Amino acid sequence: MTKRPTIADVARRAGVSKGSVSFALNGRPGLASATVDKILAAADELGWRPSNRARSLSVSKAFALGLVITRDPAVLSSDPFFPAFIAGVESVLSTQGQALVLQVVADGSEADGYRRLAQDARVDGVFLSDLRHDDPRIDLLVELGLPAVTLNRPDGASPFPAVTLDDRPGSVAVVEHLLGLGHTRIAHVAGPPAFVHATARSTAFVETLAAAGLAPVAVEAGDFTGAGGIEATRRLLALPEPPTAIVYANDRMAIAGLGAAQAAGMTVPDDLSMAGFDDSELAEYVHPGLTTVRADPFQFGVAAARTLNRVVDGETDVPDVELPPAELVVRRSTSAPPA
Amino acid sequence: MTKRPTIADVARRAGVSKGSVSFALNGRPGLASATVDKILAAADELGWRPSNRARSLSVSKAFALGLVITRDPAVLSSDPFFPAFIAGVESVLSTQGQALVLQVVADGSEADGYRRLAQDARVDGVFLSDLRHDDPRIDLLVELGLPAVTLNRPDGASPFPAVTLDDRPGSVAVVEHLLGLGHTRIAHVAGPPAFVHATARSTAFVETLAAAGLAPVAVEAGDFTGAGGIEATRRLLALPEPPTAIVYANDRMAIAGLGAAQAAGMTVPDDLSMAGFDDSELAEYVHPGLTTVRADPFQFGVAAARTLNRVVDGETDVPDVELPPAELVVRRSTSAPPA
Repeated sequence: MTKRPTIADVARRAGVSKGSVSFALNGRPGLASATVDKILAAADELGWRPSNRARSLSVSKAFALGLVITRDPAVLSSDPFFPAFIAGVESVLSTQGQALVLQVVADGSEADGYRRLAQDARVDGVFLSDLRHDDPRIDLLVELGLPAVTLNRPDGASPFPAVTLDDRPGSVAVVEHLLGLGHTRIAHVAGPPAFVHATARSTAFVETLAAAGLAPVAVEAGDFTGAGGIEATRRLLALPEPPTAIVYANDRMAIAGLGAAQAAGMTVPDDLSMAGFDDSELAEYVHPGLTTVRADPFQFGVAAARTLNRVVDGETDVPDVELPPAELVVRRSTSAPPA
Repeated sequence: MTKRPTIADVARRAGVSKGSVSFALNGRPGLASATVDKILAAADELGWRPSNRARSLSVSKAFALGLVITRDPAVLSSDPFFPAFIAGVESVLSTQGQALVLQVVADGSEADGYRRLAQDARVDGVFLSDLRHDDPRIDLLVELGLPAVTLNRPDGASPFPAVTLDDRPGSVAVVEHLLGLGHTRIAHVAGPPAFVHATARSTAFVETLAAAGLAPVAVEAGDFTGAGGIEATRRLLALPEPPTAIVYANDRMAIAGLGAAQAAGMTVPDDLSMAGFDDSELAEYVHPGLTTVRADPFQFGVAAARTLNRVVDGETDVPDVELPPAELVVRRSTSAPPA
C-alpha cells in the first residue's frame, strides 16, 4: 500500500517550508500568489488529500518546539550545557523549517510557562530538561495534551520517550582514576540535590568509593556556579585533615576551585588533585588542564529534536534513545597524592 | 478623549494573556469555554470594539519576538553574551505573555531564517545582533515588513531604533590602565573583523595607543574562541621582541591565553600582563583574577526587549536607548612590566 503523501512531501516537492504549505492549503494570508500556485500544483501532483486528522493537524501545527528553562540567569549564562544543547536542537529544526520557542521562567513558574505554550498553540511539543525528583511536569504535560521527550528518565512512570545520556560511568571513572593514582582522601562538591543529574553524579561518586572500602572525606553542597565552587573548596581546604583530591560536579565549580587553591598558594596537582564534569571549552585551556568528564550536549540536542519530532508527527511507541555514556578525559590537574 | 481600550486592557481585566484574548475574539479554538466567556465579558465591560487596524493586529499578532543567530555552535556554547542577553529578554517577555523564537542558522543562511520567521507570521519583530559592516539584513527586514531593533548601530542609515552599549570606553580604559602601569609594548588579540563590535574594540585599542605616541606590537586575528586565543598568544610570545602586555577582545581568548602562558612557564602578571573583555563569570575566579571590561548583557536584553515591544505595539519614532558604557574591572592579571 502506497504511503499517503504528507504535508512534508508537498513541502519538499514545492521547495517550501511545511508552514507555507499549511498556510496555502488552509487559505491563510501571507504568501505570494506564485508560491500558493506552486504549492497547490505540488499537492495535486502528489495526490495529496486532506483527511480529518491531517486537516486538524495542519490547522493546529505550530511547526515549533518549546523549551522552558528555570535556571537562574547567572547560572544560565555560565552553564555550557544549554547553549550547546540548543545549538544541537537548532541544527535539526533549521532543516525542518521549525523554530525553537524558548522561555526562561522563575523557579516555580514553569507550570505557567508550559500552560502558555500549550494555550497559545505555539508549539507542537516540548523538551523536558532538568528533571526533578517526582517531577510534577510529567502529569501537567499529559493534562495539557502536549507531546514531550524527557532529557534522561524521570523517577516514576512516564508516557514520553526519554533521550538518555548516562553520566554515571563518567563519574565512576573519575573516582577510579584517582584511586588508581593512590588517593584515599577524596571529597566531592555536588550540584543542587533537587536535580536528578546532580544526584546521579554524587551517588556514583559515593558508591564507587564504597566499592573500594572508602568513605568520602566530605560531600559539599555546591550549586553549579563558580561562587559556589569557591566556597565549597575553601570549606574543604579548611578541614583539619583536608582531602588530597576533589571531584566537582561540573567544570565551572572546578575551575573556580582551582583558582581558589592556587590563590591560597597551593600547586595543582602536586598539593591537590582536582577533577570536573562537562569538558567545557576552558577545561582544556586553564593551567593545569582540567581532568573532567565529557558528554556531548550538542548531540544530545540533535537526538532530542529528532525524537520529539517523531512523537509530534504522530508516531506511536517511539523508543527511548541512548547516547554514548559520558567518558573520562584525563589532563594534568590530577596526579598522585603528596607523599 | 478617553483612550480606546486595547487587547492588552482586556487581557489584564480577564486575567489572561493577550494571545488568549486574540484567540477568543477571533473565534480560534484552544480555549476552555469558561475562559472564552470570561474574556468576552471583560471586553464587553471595557467597551472594547474591533477596529480595522485592531482587527488586523489581533489576527496577525504572534505575541513572540525573534532572534536569528549565526554563530558557530562551538562559539555559541562558549560566548557568555547570548545566554545572558536571552535571559534579559526573557525576563521582559515572560511578564508580557510573549515567547522568544530562536533560530540558529549557518553563516550565510540568515536571510532564510528571517524570511521564514516573517512568512509563517511567527514573530511580531526581531532583534538584529552581531551587526556586520554594510549589513544586508536591514534592507531585508524592511522588505519583509518585520519590525526590528538593532543591538548597537549599523554603519549606514537604519529605520530601526538602536539599543546601544558602547564598548569603546572600556577598551580605551584597558589600554590607559596598562600605559599607566608603564607598559609600552602592548599587543591586541582581536575578534573577527566582520563584526562591528570586534572592530570597535580593536579600533579603540589602536587609537588609544596612538594618542600616547605608540604603535601596537601586533594586532593578531583571533576568533573569540579559546583555541583562537591560544594560537594568537603563542604567535605573540614567539616574536623576537614579545609584548609585555596583551589585550584580548574577549575573556574566552584571554583565559585560554593565560593558561598557554603559564604552561610555557611564565608567571602572570610578573612576566606578562593580560586583560580580557566581558567580565564573564570565570574571569573573577581564575588565578590570577583577570583584568577585564564589564558590560551588562542581561540589561542589554531587558532594554532591547522593551524597545522592540514599543515598535511592535505601533509606537512611532521610538528613540535609541543608550545603556551605561562598558567599564574597566581591574584584577591581578595586570601589573607593571618586568624591569
